[in-house]
Amino acid sequence: MPTLSNPEDVIVQIEAATVCGTDLHITQGVHPEVPLGTILGHEGIGTIIETGANVKKFRIGDRVLIPPTTSCGTCENCAKGYPAHCSGSGENGWLLGHTIDGVQAEYARIPYADNSLYAIPEGLSNEDAILAADVLPSAFEIGVVNGRVSDGDTVVIIGDGPIGLSAVITARLKNPASVILVGIEDFRLETAIMLGADHVVDSARPGWVEAVRKLCPKGGADVVIEAVGKKETLEGAFALVNTFGRVANIGVHTSPVSLPIESMWIKNLTLTTGMLSCRCVPTLLDLQSKGEIRASSLITHRFKLFDTVRAYETFSSASTSKATKVFIGR
Amino acid sequence: MPTLSNPEDVIVQIEAATVCGTDLHITQGVHPEVPLGTILGHEGIGTIIETGANVKKFRIGDRVLIPPTTSCGTCENCAKGYPAHCSGSGENGWLLGHTIDGVQAEYARIPYADNSLYAIPEGLSNEDAILAADVLPSAFEIGVVNGRVSDGDTVVIIGDGPIGLSAVITARLKNPASVILVGIEDFRLETAIMLGADHVVDSARPGWVEAVRKLCPKGGADVVIEAVGKKETLEGAFALVNTFGRVANIGVHTSPVSLPIESMWIKNLTLTTGMLSCRCVPTLLDLQSKGEIRASSLITHRFKLFDTVRAYETFSSASTSKATKVFIGR
Repeated sequence: MPTLSNPEDVIVQIEAATVCGTDLHITQGVHPEVPLGTILGHEGIGTIIETGANVKKFRIGDRVLIPPTTSCGTCENCAKGYPAHCSGSGENGWLLGHTIDGVQAEYARIPYADNSLYAIPEGLSNEDAILAADVLPSAFEIGVVNGRVSDGDTVVIIGDGPIGLSAVITARLKNPASVILVGIEDFRLETAIMLGADHVVDSARPGWVEAVRKLCPKGGADVVIEAVGKKETLEGAFALVNTFGRVANIGVHTSPVSLPIESMWIKNLTLTTGMLSCRCVPTLLDLQSKGEIRASSLITHRFKLFDTVRAYETFSSASTSKATKVFIGR
Repeated sequence: MPTLSNPEDVIVQIEAATVCGTDLHITQGVHPEVPLGTILGHEGIGTIIETGANVKKFRIGDRVLIPPTTSCGTCENCAKGYPAHCSGSGENGWLLGHTIDGVQAEYARIPYADNSLYAIPEGLSNEDAILAADVLPSAFEIGVVNGRVSDGDTVVIIGDGPIGLSAVITARLKNPASVILVGIEDFRLETAIMLGADHVVDSARPGWVEAVRKLCPKGGADVVIEAVGKKETLEGAFALVNTFGRVANIGVHTSPVSLPIESMWIKNLTLTTGMLSCRCVPTLLDLQSKGEIRASSLITHRFKLFDTVRAYETFSSASTSKATKVFIGR
């Protein structure tokens, strides 16, 4: 049972959580900085059961969304609207389920509650709301907004994971002419079509870049959103973007890529990168509440909180289990 | 003596021209597409002596600035404000001194005069005005504006050629806290200080990236403007840019570079590229006219029109002649 450490903390009784690709990486040893025995999970929903003395925005009984990062709300970067880059000296950045206990538990302590939590609109289901903790805002803020998806654009989204599929949902908010999703799992390509993609391309087949090009009215895209984080996919993005186009990188990369600047310089291209600030979370919760976007179809599997290990097993074998996003709830 | 080919053409009596690095490349065989015997030059000043039937904006006797590209003014890209990417079917793009005769001559034919020429304010000298044909707008539009140089920024400019030095002049318009110019020629580094650079760094010395970093208050730059076009300098730009920063590439590159996306993705960085549209030419002529920017000190050598070959020899041996920009006039 966690207890308050700082007057800005709250204790939350967890109602729901989900498993992220990063959680799988931790169990595989990719993040050796995670102390052994840490409770994982950085996307959650819960009810506040205890508040620190300095918490002003929330009260006991409030139902809140818990995103991956916590932030002070008062430093230079927070004031600029980039809380994920919080430069304060306290418990900020990605700590939950990383260097402090996370949300795949019955209870969790959340630092800097006022600036880090979001009130969930009444009536919005946990299965909808949980997707606004990370995958929807990452897709929207770092993909759609950074890429300046606009009316009439041809948008290519590379990646059929929860973030790539969320990019299909949120790109549609900007009224593009055409959305093409590139992925490797047939069941997810089907989901992409259901969510509003006009075309899907299987990137496991050779010549996928050429196949995408043929589907673009002008032979290339106005915006390419990269939601994989591999060399081949980002280089594919560069190959697919047209003059005046934007490549919005969401993927978490582990090695450099080749930038074809010799053909790009003349094309007025823009490449953006970024880490989720969550600025758009209230907007996304509101859009879900009004039924203007529907994301809960990304959830393919449901588990009880005490059955979290099976949720990991299911999500880590996504190709055979056909899992996109797993939901853990009471 | 050129004659009108199309009703949108004008004939200009050339008063002044200059030699661009690209002109040198043509004489060195880098652009084999240039027909033998073509008159070179794509930055000029002249007086209109004949107008085609469809020319509406200019009259005989008008003193005009001739930039590198010509454009129809009516196609989709021209309408969007990108005349350099004119998609019409006529004489558009970089033709002058490339695939048709240019401006290093007594007379020149200029296609699409209405959309391609700029009136020069009365009283502005040829030596000032000529710099608004290419180097000043390239530095401003593709470097300073694309890089969103803002109040209080630390700006690193890589390249001590006329465009890098013009970036010093035009970055100052945005009130940055600090401008650092990186170059290889001592005489140009001195010019940079005179034009308003706070610091200069000699990139011929090993460890120049580290030397620049030490001069940046936050250990890196808010904006890096690349005005060279080499692998080392663009990779240096990536190494120098801070979180939330922008790399604005102006350089004309001939080979791919390595993009350190594995360290960039989390930093909310933006990379921009572009080809000069000249949208800002009237503003730059006006600023020069009011004395708010002074660029003519970039001109180090003056030649008569009939002495153009010597201008090329001087510019092509810039290290020994200490030439930055050569001026050719009547």
